[in-house]
Amino acid sequence: MREKLTIVKVGGKIVEEDATLYKLLDDFAAIEGYKLLVHGGGRSATKLAEKLGIESKMVNGRRITDAETLKVVTMVYGGLVNKSIVAGLQARDVNALGLTGADMNAIRSNKRPVKDIDYGFVGDVEQVNASLLADLIQKDIIPVMAPLTHDGKGNILNTNADTIAGETAKALAGFFDVTLIYCFEKKGVLRDENDDDSVIPQITQEEFKVYVEEGVIGGGMIPKLENAFDALNAGVCEVVITLSSAINGKFGTLIRK
Amino acid sequence: MREKLTIVKVGGKIVEEDATLYKLLDDFAAIEGYKLLVHGGGRSATKLAEKLGIESKMVNGRRITDAETLKVVTMVYGGLVNKSIVAGLQARDVNALGLTGADMNAIRSNKRPVKDIDYGFVGDVEQVNASLLADLIQKDIIPVMAPLTHDGKGNILNTNADTIAGETAKALAGFFDVTLIYCFEKKGVLRDENDDDSVIPQITQEEFKVYVEEGVIGGGMIPKLENAFDALNAGVCEVVITLSSAINGKFGTLIRK
Repeated sequence: MREKLTIVKVGGKIVEEDATLYKLLDDFAAIEGYKLLVHGGGRSATKLAEKLGIESKMVNGRRITDAETLKVVTMVYGGLVNKSIVAGLQARDVNALGLTGADMNAIRSNKRPVKDIDYGFVGDVEQVNASLLADLIQKDIIPVMAPLTHDGKGNILNTNADTIAGETAKALAGFFDVTLIYCFEKKGVLRDENDDDSVIPQITQEEFKVYVEEGVIGGGMIPKLENAFDALNAGVCEVVITLSSAINGKFGTLIRK
Repeated sequence: MREKLTIVKVGGKIVEEDATLYKLLDDFAAIEGYKLLVHGGGRSATKLAEKLGIESKMVNGRRITDAETLKVVTMVYGGLVNKSIVAGLQARDVNALGLTGADMNAIRSNKRPVKDIDYGFVGDVEQVNASLLADLIQKDIIPVMAPLTHDGKGNILNTNADTIAGETAKALAGFFDVTLIYCFEKKGVLRDENDDDSVIPQITQEEFKVYVEEGVIGGGMIPKLENAFDALNAGVCEVVITLSSAINGKFGTLIRK
């Protein structure tokens, strides 16, 4: 029988304030069995860039990463945010190991080709080094992954944390029964976006199609759910979309094939 | 027979310019067998602190690390400097893994007690997790260690890179035949501080005492050499003090028991 692995993705916002960070660390430490954490970066990089007089350019919700911005995100995501989480987990007896994709060649990516928009130093995931990660996990080391990858040519690349979580989950599905938990600012996928309590408890791929046709699900939730089904179709056992304060996966929306 | 391990400590200055960084990466990649790199931080943290309006306080050559300065060094040493080196080594087919002391509980330290001076968030090394490091090294993963440790209570602590290199060498001497190479801005221990070519090729503990009595060796070189003999007495095979551009250990001053 294969062992269970829980992969939790949290946004960068949750680590910016001590109260939410400590709650996350407590909740994550309480998850039993093998686990892995992926964190975003978010506003703290924007704030540091502002202080340094570097303009943050966003296109379609994605940061344009020029050379100076790359330095900022490497410092904030790979340094401050990642090491705060790692040190906090160590204090809770979780043997965390902070990783960017460059570390141990964990995630190699390709610099996004310039089409209509030049996103700059942004990486699209090419390969996850699943066997090395699985080896660490089986030694009770808990990877804490920053939203940074590398291109194998010496460049760090800024990479979407949702994508890192999804690709890592798919790669590790070859070794474990993976549950992937996406945390965000809502309780789950909502039937009515104006009613925070209208969480749809479970969605299958068939139901998803119907919800989209009926206009119940729209906007940014569509790519999130497409990613979820993509992960399920690649061997991930279940995906949960839930609140950052409910990472045990017992609440929120359960996505199943 | 035990395998050989080369531990190289370089200052932060060498990674600040592309030319010296690339030379270091090439030279380190060329070292055969098991190896580990320890890097300092240096001026890049001071520069970032300046830009952010944080005053860098130094006492006896050591940075006073207040809460804001700790964030800066965590970003610069643990993020920018460490990941630049790791990505650069990956591009040279060296499977580098960047580590602070918090990662995998690699180095636990104690916050320095306040006596005459309050150094702030500065750590004195308590314990190196040698078995986990040895395990990685034997899998051909190359640790790249930033000058940061943790106290096991959730705090990252700023820690002298020479000390990290020395303590790591001592701890790993239980697993490997360790050569420890300290790189700095001179060709080695000089007989005449005004003559850069007056390198003393080899120093034993007895000779060191004589050199100090005669005034040949003085100043900051005394604690460096004391650390070297401390490492040798704890089982490290040899210590070399040399230029950052000569890290193959074939030049400089060889320190032997």
